[in-house]
This record gives sequence, C-alpha cells and structure tokens, in this order.
Amino acid sequence: MKRFALNSATTRRWPLPDLVAGCVDAGVDNVGLWREDLSGFGVEAAAALVRDAGLTVTSLCRGGFFDAPGWFDENRRAIDEAAGVGAPVLVLVSGGLPAGSRDLDAARAHVGEAIGALVPHALAAGVRLAVEPLHPMFCSDRCVVASLGQALDLAEPYPPEAVGVVVDTYHLWWDGQVWAQIARAGRAERIACFQVADWVTPLPAGVLLGRGLPGAGCVELRRFREAVDAAGYTGPIEVEVFAEEVWSRPGRVVLDEAIAGYREHVA
Amino acid sequence: MKRFALNSATTRRWPLPDLVAGCVDAGVDNVGLWREDLSGFGVEAAAALVRDAGLTVTSLCRGGFFDAPGWFDENRRAIDEAAGVGAPVLVLVSGGLPAGSRDLDAARAHVGEAIGALVPHALAAGVRLAVEPLHPMFCSDRCVVASLGQALDLAEPYPPEAVGVVVDTYHLWWDGQVWAQIARAGRAERIACFQVADWVTPLPAGVLLGRGLPGAGCVELRRFREAVDAAGYTGPIEVEVFAEEVWSRPGRVVLDEAIAGYREHVA
Repeated sequence: MKRFALNSATTRRWPLPDLVAGCVDAGVDNVGLWREDLSGFGVEAAAALVRDAGLTVTSLCRGGFFDAPGWFDENRRAIDEAAGVGAPVLVLVSGGLPAGSRDLDAARAHVGEAIGALVPHALAAGVRLAVEPLHPMFCSDRCVVASLGQALDLAEPYPPEAVGVVVDTYHLWWDGQVWAQIARAGRAERIACFQVADWVTPLPAGVLLGRGLPGAGCVELRRFREAVDAAGYTGPIEVEVFAEEVWSRPGRVVLDEAIAGYREHVA
Repeated sequence: MKRFALNSATTRRWPLPDLVAGCVDAGVDNVGLWREDLSGFGVEAAAALVRDAGLTVTSLCRGGFFDAPGWFDENRRAIDEAAGVGAPVLVLVSGGLPAGSRDLDAARAHVGEAIGALVPHALAAGVRLAVEPLHPMFCSDRCVVASLGQALDLAEPYPPEAVGVVVDTYHLWWDGQVWAQIARAGRAERIACFQVADWVTPLPAGVLLGRGLPGAGCVELRRFREAVDAAGYTGPIEVEVFAEEVWSRPGRVVLDEAIAGYREHVA
C-alpha cells in the first residue's frame, strides 16, 4: 500500500476534507489532486489540510490545453498551484485540434513549443511537467498526443527533471509498442507519473466517463506495473477513474473498492 | 469519379436494387458491398444485379471475428461469397478479446494464425484478404488490430496477392506513424482497399455510429489519398460511413453528399 495513491478524480464528489479524512482512515498515504479541488478551497488551505493529515500529494491535474487562448498564463498559474500544494508533478493534457483545423502535425508541433515555453517556470518552481498521452479517441477534442512514443518525442528536447511523461493504463493499453516505449521512458528517466484505470465497454456517449476501477475491465494492469518497475520507476501508483457509475457512490466505498482492485490486479 | 465507390454501409437502409439504380443514375461505377446485402438476396442474384447494371464490386465486408466459435468455416463462406459476387477483396475485422480475457498479445497472435489458415482457400478462390486495423477505441470488443503497422506485421508472412491491408482514414488519422506505414504498405504492395470517412465528435454511446461523410470532420482526407497514391495504390476509393444521422436520410441524398464531399475533400 505504500505506493497506492487515490487520485481525487475517482471520488469526484467527495469534498476535500472528507477525502483527506477517508484516506487517513483507510491507511492511504498519497493523493493526486485536481486544480478544481483547490479552487474552492484556496491553495494554501488545501496544502495545509493535506499536509497536517500526513498525506503526500503525488501530482496535480492539470495543465495543458494549449489550443485555448491564454494557455501560457494559465499554465504558469497551474505550475504555481502545483508548487503551492506540494505536488512534484503537473500533468499536462495537450488539448485537441484548434476549432476548424485539420492540421494535426501543426497542433503537435505547437504542443512541443508550448512545453518549451513553460520549462523555465517549471524548473524555477521545482515542478516537473508530465506530458500525458490520451487514448486516440480523444485526439481531436482533448489531446493530440495519442501515444507514449509521441509524448516521449515531445519531452526529449528538455531535461528529464523538467519534462517527463504520464503512463496511464487506460490510455495506452491497446498500443502494441507500449512495452518498448515504457522501457525507453525508463532509460530516459521520463516516467513522472503512473496512473491506473481499467478499460470497460460499451463506452458511454462522449466517451469521457467510461473508465472502470482496477479489475473491472480487460487491461493487463499488473503487466503495466511490472513494466514501469522494470523501467526503474519507484514512485506512486495513482488510481484515477472517471465514471458516472463510480462517482454516484459514496467516496469511502469507492476508495475501498479501489484499494481492493489495486491489491488484486496491480500490486 | 472513376475511382469513387459507394460502400453500401453508408446507405444502409437503401435496398440493393435501389442502391444499384441510384449509383447508375449518379454516374457511380463502383460499389463496396456487405454480406448482409447478399444474405436477403442470394449471392448469384446480387452478382447478376450489380453486373447487369455495369457496376464493379470493389470489396466485400466482412470476414474476421476470429474470437467467435466457428470462425474458420464462417470465413471460408465469406471468401466464397466474395468470389461469388465478384469482389476481389474480402475485408477482415479481426474481432476483439475473447470474453474474460486480458491477453491482447495472445489474441493478436491468434489473428495471425487465423489469417494463415485462410490463405489457401483465399488463393484458390482468387479473393484477397484485407486486414483492417480499426481505431483503438474498438480494440477490446471489435478489433485487436489497432494500427496500420500491426496490420502489416500480420500480413507480412503471406504473399501480397493473398493478404493485404485496408487503409481507412477514420481508423488511422490520429496515428503519427501512419504516413510512414502507408509508404511501407506501398513498398510491400499490401494496400488492398482504401476507405474514407471523417472523424466527428462528440462520439455517440457505443462509438460505432459516429462517423461523418467526407468534409464533416477533422481528418486530412486529401493527404491520405495523396499518400496512398504516392505509395502506388491506383484502386477504388470507398466512402464508408456508419452514422445514424446519415442512415436516417434517403439513400440518393446521402450518395449525392458523399460524391460532393469526395470531390471537395478527397479527389
């Protein structure tokens, strides 16, 4: 359980103080947070709440969306919030194609430039940027970075302490090249974050909220954990699930199921 | 318009005789058919109907689903139907993971073996098998072959006249490696079928029926056509769209829109 982390997206309707108390009660040491968790609360107050409970913040979700106006200032704020809440990693979801555009190459090139523009501020703040490849079904409207290989290509020009990648089982499980790319990520010391969710069908409309807790689907979760371990990653393992069916249940019930699924299918 | 083909899935509720008459009236020379088109009609009667109208059958959809019991006999029947209706190509959609399985490598290996088992019958029948990679969002329940590179790897052990691949813009547009893989497919003389549909969001529940006619979405369709051309492909270009919104309209209206979209965005 030392590496287990609850990503707060999994228990989205659990208020932060309840989530913190629930984690302490369940023996969970690590939490991944979202900027939304902080916005109603204040970064310093959230940081104090989590720290005083003895919890470690593993990551903050999220920056990115480089197709949106004002992305540069917004991402600098996100970096500051990560530093403020004690998160060593800021997850970046790149954003999709600009409205009306079909130029995927240009969108991907822009992501590379945007990351570069943020590196100095990230280094100064002591926050590592983590480029997250999303499942290709999100390529047009959410994330043009659609494979781990692409994320590594984008990270490559920058120092590993400034830019890493996210390995998320939900987004990458279908990719025949993922095992080789995890090994590559390890050699390059780029694995900044490891997130676990299971793949479940049929997908709901809009496809965002169709994930399953570990064990609910068909992903070789343990193989992923062994692969990131073999690549030298020793950090936290976040369970991060987006699903209406999961959100509709009490936070503590979901946390217990996440822990059980983690023990049986990941650890 | 010489290369344009209407895939009958695009006008799914248009009965075959009406589709044939509509194509003739619109100056369309080529149709891609589905086994469902033949089943209510009889293979020979369908073949005569199409041939007597002067149309060419470009492909038959589909064989595959190698995770289903009886796949071997069913695929041999599909090959016979392709030969019977004069389709030079049988499209293969591999099927997903067996129920309860997480072993994607094993499922993919089985696809390779299944293709090999069908090659002698395909060669004897003069029908080329075309391995179709589907979008990774279909990987678990419909097609474990999730990229053009994987399809080419599966085809490689067999003669190009026996086993080719399908290049379908809807399934492949997100893949940063697709241009290199199209070139590879051309060098290996593996491009057996080229299908065009556009990517539209939000995706509907189940994600099967969310495609757009050419021009409705964000795919660089003309770049794909130029890429297969540059790879030496000179065959038909099928417009194949699955969408409730498209199916709900009269076949001839949809055909005219498909032609207009093809002219503006593909040809």
